[in-house]
Amino acid sequence: MEQNKIYLIVGLGLLGGKYAKELSERGFTVTAIERSEERLQFALEHGYISRGKSADFTDLIQEADHIVFGLYPTVFIEWVRQWGKYIQPGCVFTDVSGVKTGLVDTIQQLLPEGVEFIASHPMAGKETSGVENSDKVDFSTANFIITPTEKNTPQAIAWCRELAETLGFRHITMLTAAMHDHMIGYVSQLCHAIAAALMIAEDNTSLAEYTGDSFRDLTRIARLNDKMWAELFLWNKENLINQIDQFDMALQTIKKAMEDDDREKLERLFQLSTKRRALFDKKQ
Amino acid sequence: MEQNKIYLIVGLGLLGGKYAKELSERGFTVTAIERSEERLQFALEHGYISRGKSADFTDLIQEADHIVFGLYPTVFIEWVRQWGKYIQPGCVFTDVSGVKTGLVDTIQQLLPEGVEFIASHPMAGKETSGVENSDKVDFSTANFIITPTEKNTPQAIAWCRELAETLGFRHITMLTAAMHDHMIGYVSQLCHAIAAALMIAEDNTSLAEYTGDSFRDLTRIARLNDKMWAELFLWNKENLINQIDQFDMALQTIKKAMEDDDREKLERLFQLSTKRRALFDKKQ
Repeated sequence: MEQNKIYLIVGLGLLGGKYAKELSERGFTVTAIERSEERLQFALEHGYISRGKSADFTDLIQEADHIVFGLYPTVFIEWVRQWGKYIQPGCVFTDVSGVKTGLVDTIQQLLPEGVEFIASHPMAGKETSGVENSDKVDFSTANFIITPTEKNTPQAIAWCRELAETLGFRHITMLTAAMHDHMIGYVSQLCHAIAAALMIAEDNTSLAEYTGDSFRDLTRIARLNDKMWAELFLWNKENLINQIDQFDMALQTIKKAMEDDDREKLERLFQLSTKRRALFDKKQ
Repeated sequence: MEQNKIYLIVGLGLLGGKYAKELSERGFTVTAIERSEERLQFALEHGYISRGKSADFTDLIQEADHIVFGLYPTVFIEWVRQWGKYIQPGCVFTDVSGVKTGLVDTIQQLLPEGVEFIASHPMAGKETSGVENSDKVDFSTANFIITPTEKNTPQAIAWCRELAETLGFRHITMLTAAMHDHMIGYVSQLCHAIAAALMIAEDNTSLAEYTGDSFRDLTRIARLNDKMWAELFLWNKENLINQIDQFDMALQTIKKAMEDDDREKLERLFQLSTKRRALFDKKQ
């Protein structure tokens, strides 16, 4: 990537902060817009950014060759509505949002002539948040998904891929927004719904001393950034409700086999589970 | 513990094999009864046992001061029905079974005068099986639960605790069989049912390349020893069905909040999940 380009990070959250850190370390000029003075200060002191502002930041927008939006979807849309007009022609930018349908189109329609939004999702979130924790994020084991629309140019897609390569992602791939949201409903949001349901189901505090690896593994992600996950769940509501229903049918199948004392059926279900999980290990 | 005592392991599975290995390393005489000649051979070659038999083993039963049963519950009961009469007065023995209600009473009623069964559950299972994998089991991070009945003597309970200490378990505790089965239904079996349901819900093989840590964590235990888990599920059917229902209600609560677009309700649910999980981290 061209090192003389200026990267603007909007929102120094966990991922925005990590982009800033990685890009600065690789010699790019990185600026930031962030509401919290504390976070700006942290990013400046740690050399993640060279300049940052919480207000009067139109100059930072105008100077940016590329922008990375690390905002929640609704905040992202509001931001572009208000400040999008200051983005200069030639600017190509991306985001880190975990949902795409309804978001990417909306943003693309709001943009001035000559400005391009190529959406992407770095699957590297953790149970922590904020730029203060960005150094705990590991891109080298994470997937990076680019979700282009018909409006995107090959040049913008190539830039986004190059950005992911520069940041060291393990696996870079492309999906439509719809496929992305279906996939993410299953491999991420459904898992978080399940982990939360496990904690909500029973006042389990007295059982904590007895838990083994399996319970710990299943509920590690039950510490949820409530505002972010409420947003992601509602944004991907249709997919996620569908996934919950499908999951529930599978769980009811297991329950039914137990009620019927159908040992063979249970064994067949477990064999299917084992077979699929084994295949999945090979694909890793 | 008295080192001149002879320990008989019945069933050189993952845990039976680990007991044999650990006791032999600590200088005890360990013998074994195991159907598979291969497993006996493995245990002999690796010094886990000093003698072992797959047939004509009444002498091994008669010589044993202590026995550890590493059999599935139904096989365990059948074994004691057939061979229990050869256990000598003074012998105190235990098991490794993951379910207790209906099993402990039944075994205790089958025993000859002067023989005592004190039930226990080493919570150290893994996704592998067999004595060949016993060296991968780690007792130092695992819980050990003793589940005495009214028939048990303080001496037998003390012996069982000492055994767990000798084997190096992290945390040794006592529960009634009913409490144990309620607890294990929640922290282990429900988790395995969920992991299996996640794999069964959708032909997910095409999604494998996109999965992040959360999906991998939630489905690590989806590789199930189908015969063992079918047995455990059916044995603890009442508790587990109840747990599945409670879990399902919690999941439906999340789904309902999404259907209602009730962002505040979702956030409150996630806050509860986060609070409980955090408390739970402290207890570790």
